[in-house]
Amino acid sequence: MAYTTFESEVTVRPDDIDMNNHVHNARYLDYVLAARYEQMEKCYGMSMEKFTARGFGWVVNTCFIKFKRPLVMGETVRVRTCIGEVADTHARVDFQILRKSNGKLSADGYFDYTLISTATGRAERLPQDVIDMYSI
Amino acid sequence: MAYTTFESEVTVRPDDIDMNNHVHNARYLDYVLAARYEQMEKCYGMSMEKFTARGFGWVVNTCFIKFKRPLVMGETVRVRTCIGEVADTHARVDFQILRKSNGKLSADGYFDYTLISTATGRAERLPQDVIDMYSI
Amino acid sequence: MAYTTFESEVTVRPDDIDMNNHVHNARYLDYVLAARYEQMEKCYGMSMEKFTARGFGWVVNTCFIKFKRPLVMGETVRVRTCIGEVADTHARVDFQILRKSNGKLSADGYFDYTLISTATGRAERLPQDVIDMYSI
Amino acid sequence: MAYTTFESEVTVRPDDIDMNNHVHNARYLDYVLAARYEQMEKCYGMSMEKFTARGFGWVVNTCFIKFKRPLVMGETVRVRTCIGEVADTHARVDFQILRKSNGKLSADGYFDYTLISTATGRAERLPQDVIDMYSI
Repeated sequence: MAYTTFESEVTVRPDDIDMNNHVHNARYLDYVLAARYEQMEKCYGMSMEKFTARGFGWVVNTCFIKFKRPLVMGETVRVRTCIGEVADTHARVDFQILRKSNGKLSADGYFDYTLISTATGRAERLPQDVIDMYSI
Repeated sequence: MAYTTFESEVTVRPDDIDMNNHVHNARYLDYVLAARYEQMEKCYGMSMEKFTARGFGWVVNTCFIKFKRPLVMGETVRVRTCIGEVADTHARVDFQILRKSNGKLSADGYFDYTLISTATGRAERLPQDVIDMYSI
Repeated sequence: MAYTTFESEVTVRPDDIDMNNHVHNARYLDYVLAARYEQMEKCYGMSMEKFTARGFGWVVNTCFIKFKRPLVMGETVRVRTCIGEVADTHARVDFQILRKSNGKLSADGYFDYTLISTATGRAERLPQDVIDMYSI
Repeated sequence: MAYTTFESEVTVRPDDIDMNNHVHNARYLDYVLAARYEQMEKCYGMSMEKFTARGFGWVVNTCFIKFKRPLVMGETVRVRTCIGEVADTHARVDFQILRKSNGKLSADGYFDYTLISTATGRAERLPQDVIDMYSI
């Protein structure tokens, strides 16, 4: 079974560049987070704010990332994400970060998110409408 | 004498938000820096890379910023900058950060930059062509 | 009238270093913030959490900073802060950032903070006990 | 075969805290980086600067991290790292991040680093003295 891949653009900012003159490793996670926020609202129809309003939060429990090619100042990246799995209390989000200038892959990997109740801080079973929403 | 005001857009990223659910104060400086980088190339015709290639660097010696209205997640900002003064070894850049959603002022202030020789690390008198370039 | 100066140490982290191989300008604000948090609790006896518990928040309304000497990787800084003024709805915090290695001044400046009610978001007159606490 | 585990302390800074009132996920990578920098110099006797002086650089090619318990403001963390493998052109660094306050595990994972020549940007076989240095 395959889920839809969505794409967002993020522009590298000067403060993302580290002492090696490349985008700092940790900022790649922020690029995926930015893309995911945008896509939750625009592509899945349920913004982070709506999850919050329903008493839910998403916490990252695992992150895996492979860095393939560095990103430099002036670059814009295309961040593609795709649900890899959605079940029980969690969702996996697969991602690819590509350089817009030449389409080459800069990094890929996945995030595993757990849905929690913001009231209890504990994992919550995904409501069926959320599973449906993410199963496009 | 008045110099031209240029404008760039910067989209708030989730990692810019701090524990108060607002864009973190220090990130405002990064928004101005991002705008300035873009404008150096697109509006003044001399990118940071070109300064570097000529053996020059710009260092911030002073920053003054007044925070008027907080910025929140989902916002895009318009960063306006304008040369306030350009002479000797330095340039002042006045800036305004506005919320794109309603045009309201979020912050304003200025940065004073000193031109340095990257070889010596010392202040350098601005070449006439740089003064001319910045005097539009 | 003079208020007491307090000092905290902050160690430069690799992620603080920017493309110029110096501590990124915006991170200086974070060093002062870190020092202030520590000093609120240890030196003034009222942690940020206690302000929050009483329904108060501090928001930055102005920041002024002069950069004198760059900071590099491996450095530890001493951040000195001192109340410059405390009255009505605000407090000014003067600061100095010094290199621990040689005691030289790296940057100085001030932050103006406004006390707000977290319920209303509006400026609040400083309670007398807070003024007293800050007047040491 | 087992390598020695080393430990560094990193103090959570206010700017590390995100909108969820926890240390931002991406900053965990920065805590490991900070620990590793310190340990390269103090524990392995070869600082990053020495690698640079020999024309070498380390680039991250993979990062895997499992987040177990959130970190909050005021916390100090103990970052334990240990070589997991060192061979050919790369080294794996296993890490654990623990809360100093109660010793509980906050996150663990690994970084895979590749040694490169800074001149060519290409992977370099680890010199024997580096392998020996890392094999303690």
